[in-house]
Amino acid sequence: MKVINIIEKFDKFSGFWKPKVIAEMNDYQFKIVKIKGDFTPHKHIETDEVFIVIEGIMYIEFSNKTVKINSGEMIVVPKGIQHKPFSKDECKIMLIEPIGVLNTGNSNDKELTAPNNKWV
Amino acid sequence: MKVINIIEKFDKFSGFWKPKVIAEMNDYQFKIVKIKGDFTPHKHIETDEVFIVIEGIMYIEFSNKTVKINSGEMIVVPKGIQHKPFSKDECKIMLIEPIGVLNTGNSNDKELTAPNNKWV
Repeated sequence: MKVINIIEKFDKFSGFWKPKVIAEMNDYQFKIVKIKGDFTPHKHIETDEVFIVIEGIMYIEFSNKTVKINSGEMIVVPKGIQHKPFSKDECKIMLIEPIGVLNTGNSNDKELTAPNNKWV
Repeated sequence: MKVINIIEKFDKFSGFWKPKVIAEMNDYQFKIVKIKGDFTPHKHIETDEVFIVIEGIMYIEFSNKTVKINSGEMIVVPKGIQHKPFSKDECKIMLIEPIGVLNTGNSNDKELTAPNNKWV
């Protein structure tokens, strides 16, 4: 039952698009990620996914629109929906999703696929 | 796929200890609550529960310690663990927990038990 300071956790790692786990609730994980530039378009067949922007501005490109998510805002991406996260400048985000979800979903992008269960 | 501004959602309701749903992910809900003063000690037999402090300072009293959670910090309260949330001044928090979890858990405190599935 430790108190977790979310923004301070970002100082404990470097690199973009490499999610780190900071907390676990039942079979879900809270992961933080630094992002910059374009991620690979992908979807998660099996689960919804929540993005909360902690610092900066992120965008998600869907098939029919692109949304802008500012610091202090969140979005739920429903399962099965293709999405491409990106940011112009460095942005710090938190993800909430079931344990074991691969960051690149169904995309087979081996370069951007990050290992799971890396805690900070 | 709407973008949700967390802090702005707090302007849409009044009252303390009355959770409002702002998002749903699979069978989980994101709820926001204004708190002030003492809540009833309780536990949730069936689930962990996450608290994220959005504004202000909250405390949780456990059997062996009391923790202070500042704005930007979070904590996971494991299932089955007795806890008493409280705050000295008004505090704005977000909860993440499965749909249907009662705010007062096992306490039978009818006065503080809030209805579920109230969206803002």
